[in-house]
Order: sequence, then structure tokens, then C-alpha cells
Amino acid sequence: MDRIVECIPNFSEGKRKEVIDQIVGEIKKVKGVKLLDVESDADHNRSVVTFIGEPEAAAEAAFLATKKASELIDLNLHRGEHPRIGATDVMPFVPISNVTMKECVELARNVGKRIADELKIPVYLYEAAALKPECTNLADIRKGEYECLKNEIGTNPARKPDYGPAKLHPTAGATVVGAREPLIAFNVNLATNDMEIAKKIAKAVRFSSGGLKCVKAKGFELKNRGIVQVSMNLTNYRETPVYKAYEMVKSEAERCNVKIIGCEIIGLVPLDAIADVANFYLKLENFKNEQILEKRLWE
Amino acid sequence: MDRIVECIPNFSEGKRKEVIDQIVGEIKKVKGVKLLDVESDADHNRSVVTFIGEPEAAAEAAFLATKKASELIDLNLHRGEHPRIGATDVMPFVPISNVTMKECVELARNVGKRIADELKIPVYLYEAAALKPECTNLADIRKGEYECLKNEIGTNPARKPDYGPAKLHPTAGATVVGAREPLIAFNVNLATNDMEIAKKIAKAVRFSSGGLKCVKAKGFELKNRGIVQVSMNLTNYRETPVYKAYEMVKSEAERCNVKIIGCEIIGLVPLDAIADVANFYLKLENFKNEQILEKRLWE
Repeated sequence: MDRIVECIPNFSEGKRKEVIDQIVGEIKKVKGVKLLDVESDADHNRSVVTFIGEPEAAAEAAFLATKKASELIDLNLHRGEHPRIGATDVMPFVPISNVTMKECVELARNVGKRIADELKIPVYLYEAAALKPECTNLADIRKGEYECLKNEIGTNPARKPDYGPAKLHPTAGATVVGAREPLIAFNVNLATNDMEIAKKIAKAVRFSSGGLKCVKAKGFELKNRGIVQVSMNLTNYRETPVYKAYEMVKSEAERCNVKIIGCEIIGLVPLDAIADVANFYLKLENFKNEQILEKRLWE
Repeated sequence: MDRIVECIPNFSEGKRKEVIDQIVGEIKKVKGVKLLDVESDADHNRSVVTFIGEPEAAAEAAFLATKKASELIDLNLHRGEHPRIGATDVMPFVPISNVTMKECVELARNVGKRIADELKIPVYLYEAAALKPECTNLADIRKGEYECLKNEIGTNPARKPDYGPAKLHPTAGATVVGAREPLIAFNVNLATNDMEIAKKIAKAVRFSSGGLKCVKAKGFELKNRGIVQVSMNLTNYRETPVYKAYEMVKSEAERCNVKIIGCEIIGLVPLDAIADVANFYLKLENFKNEQILEKRLWE
């Protein structure tokens, strides 16, 4: 595989294993696609599927899974804690290797158009793929969920979908398709049990209160370890690299006279994000990530 | 590709492009093998070829290239600055991903045996694949080169090959096959033009004078930049990671009151070596390199 995108569709089914298996089966059967993870949550009644593949193959797998979900999931009967508006609720495409964000945006729009045209499911485009500025934010698109959108989609011009009918699909609702950078879940554990310190540092590093551009952060308690944590989501490691978030937490922690015990990266992380860290701390001159031997395998 | 070894055969031909092309052609035609690099040096009259592949495929490519080299290169006519004893002079196998050193040793011995049996070329095993302790070192095996070995191989018991006849191949000489860890060429540039300082730090960090186990180091002058460098070969990054070499140079440089300008990694570097650096500086807890997204592609 040379060019790689990641796709993380969220399906509104977290209980009936046979339904989830059938949807995932559509992804598995596409050549050039590799399934990485399926996480189902019964309380949320939702499954998050992660797969990677060449752009064309990933688009095909995404479409086939959406089609299958529209046949097997009925939003009118769906109950769960997590907000949702469709059987395939949201589906971001993420550029991983030798693919630009622009290409991912195009890919997301093409898949969205195909879902609208062939399945008659209204499609909203979000984040980098959004056509309207008010549609970049997922929470706004999902406001009031399926039950509310059912009424508003045909009457409120602000809720008109980007593609497809201004009318929810009778069972599958609507789908949000988009493109975004990979998310990195990065936590810094502090040698204190004082939540006020974790909250203070989180506030200092996050974008919303004047911190780093692509960082979301909150204080978090690790009760069984008797410590607190600055829990971060890095929404664009190319703009705000992991080491920058680390160094800022470190400097704020020093100010509070608290030591860093260690850090955690939760789930998957792109190779380039890890290489950037090594590059920074070793002060590498002219290092290219293509010097990493394994990268040559995808050329 | 799931299991990956790297093979870096050195051929005693650095001038006749058509000869090099034919040898490399044998490697290219094997399925499951990927050619990474061909570097030919006319003064050395030698070419260094780098390829990776699944173990079985890499073994096949290594044998075929050795066969072709034995048909096209005549050591009796070969002149060059670099020491050599054979058409295929030396051929290390290196474990890269999901392959143990033990498996690489076995692979090297199998290829060596096949070269001896089918091509009637005497084979010496070196480094991790060595059968005799006095044969671990390449320089010892190559002592006196082709011209001297021609006489000694049949008369000096210490120079008896591990496989094949105690008589050089009439044109292809002998071949050294082995297994070793990946080499990392890692240089630290210092903010001084004082060669004595570079030499002093090199001496402090290298194994031979009491430093780190898997580090070779020497002082080096970068004339056009007006600075000096500690130039290192890291012979086993699993035992002595890159950051350890860096931190030791840094601490010695501080002692000399000299700043580090930057570092260089020359050529290829395994992903795990880079991930280890990030792991250390971010103090990661429980991070597994399998969390690197791209690694999942080879599962």
C-alpha cells in the first residue's frame, strides 16, 4: 500500500453482534482495505469501526458499510446514550500516508454524494470537508438528534443537507461525512492528587483558553493511582506536535512545583507524529521520515 | 509483508554499470523483495546493495545475486581500494520486523550453505552467525584479501571456511555471510572547531575506551561548516538506544562547555529505533510500538 487513508465510521448499533458483524463484513471484503478495530458500546448503542486502505478502496468499503447499515438499523427503534442522527452516524476520512488533506476532502465529498444519490440518505459534510462554515462542527449538525432533525430538515433552511433529499431516510436517518487530521489522545500524569492543579494546567495549554492551537485538554483524576492527569486531544499533530504539548505541560507543571510521572498515548498514533518527537529531542538536521526503513515498504 | 529482514550484499564491482545492473536484476525479479538502494563506488570498485523482504524471499534473492556475481566478476582482474576476498564479498542479514536474530542467523547459515554447495564458493560465517569465535570479525576473515587467502585457505587451518571447499572459487573467490543488528550512523555536531574536544568526547562514549556497549565513535571535522562532530556507529540500538548515545555526548559536551548544534542520522534507520527516542523523552507509560498506525499494515 502506497497511499493510505484511515476511515472511522460510527454506526448506531452497539448491542446486536450479528448486525455489527454484517456491517464490518462489508468492509472486510474490499481488497486493499485493512480492518484495525471494532469497538461496540452497549450503553451508547454504538460501534466505532476503524479501517485503513488505499483511498479508492476505503471509499468503496465506506459506501458498502453505509448501505448495509441502512438495511439493518432502524433509527426509529434506536435508543442509546450517544447523540446520533443516522444508522451510519458519522464517517471521517483521515490522511495517513502520501495523501493530502485536500484529497481526503474530495474523497469524503465523493462518498457523501454517492450515499445521497444511491441510498437516498441526506448527507452533511463536516470539518475540513464542510461546504458551509456553520457545518464544520459535528455537535451543531447533530443538534436535537434524529428525532428533532426529522422535523427540521425540511423546514429549517439552516438544516438543509449538503447532498440528497431534504427529508430523512425512513430508517437510516442522515449521515455526516467529513475529513479531519488524525486525533492523538495524549495524557500527562502528574505527581500530585490535586485536581485543581490538573485543571489549571489543562486550562493553560488548551486552545479555548489561550493555549496551543490544536489542543483540547481537561483535568482528570486517576483514583486508583491516587494521582491526577492532564488529558489531551491533539487535533492536528502537524500544526501542534506532541512534543509541543508535552513541553508546555512540563513548563506549567514546573510553575506549580509538580513533577511529571509519565505520559500515555491512547490508541493509534501516526508514525510521523512519533518521528517528530525524536526529531525534536535529538535536534536532527535534515532528517526525512523517508529514512525510516519501514516507510520504504509502501513506496 | 509481515516478517522483514534486510540484506546488504557488497559486490566487488563499482565501475561496469551493466554488470551491476545484471546482479541487481536478479534481486529485483524475486517476489516479496524490495530493492532500497544501490551505491557504487569506482575508487573502491565496489557496490553496496540494500534490499528488504520476507526471509525466504530475501534468501532466494541473495543466492541468485551471488550466483550472477560469480559469473560476471573475476577477482583475478579486480583492483580497488576496498579490501575484498570475493565477487560477492560480504552479505549480512539484519532482522527488521517480526524476525528474531536467531532466525536471521539460521537464514544466513542456510544461504551460506547453499552458496557453498551449489556454487562451490567457500563461505565464512561472521558476526552473530559465526560458528567459530575467531570468525566473528570481518576484518580478520578478510586479512590479506583475495590474493593472500588464495594460498592460505588450503594450508592454514585457521582459515578453513565454514562451508564449501578449502579452495577459492577460480573467479569468485570466497564469500562472507552473516547476521547482525541494523547499524545506525548517528553524528552529533558541536559548536566548536576544536578537534581535541570531538576526539575527547568520542573516546568517552565509545565502548573500546570504557563507554557505551554498542557504540563506535570518532572525532570528525566538518571543514566547510567550521565545526567538529562526534561521528558514531550504533551497532545495536536495542541494547544501546540512540537517546543513550545522545545523552552521553551531551553530558560530556557540557563538561567541555560546548553546545550541541544538532544531530544527523545518515541513511536508513529502523522505526523501532525512532520510536524508542520518543518513548524516552515523553516518558511514555506502557506504549507499544504496535500503536503506530502504519505498523498495522504488516500484520
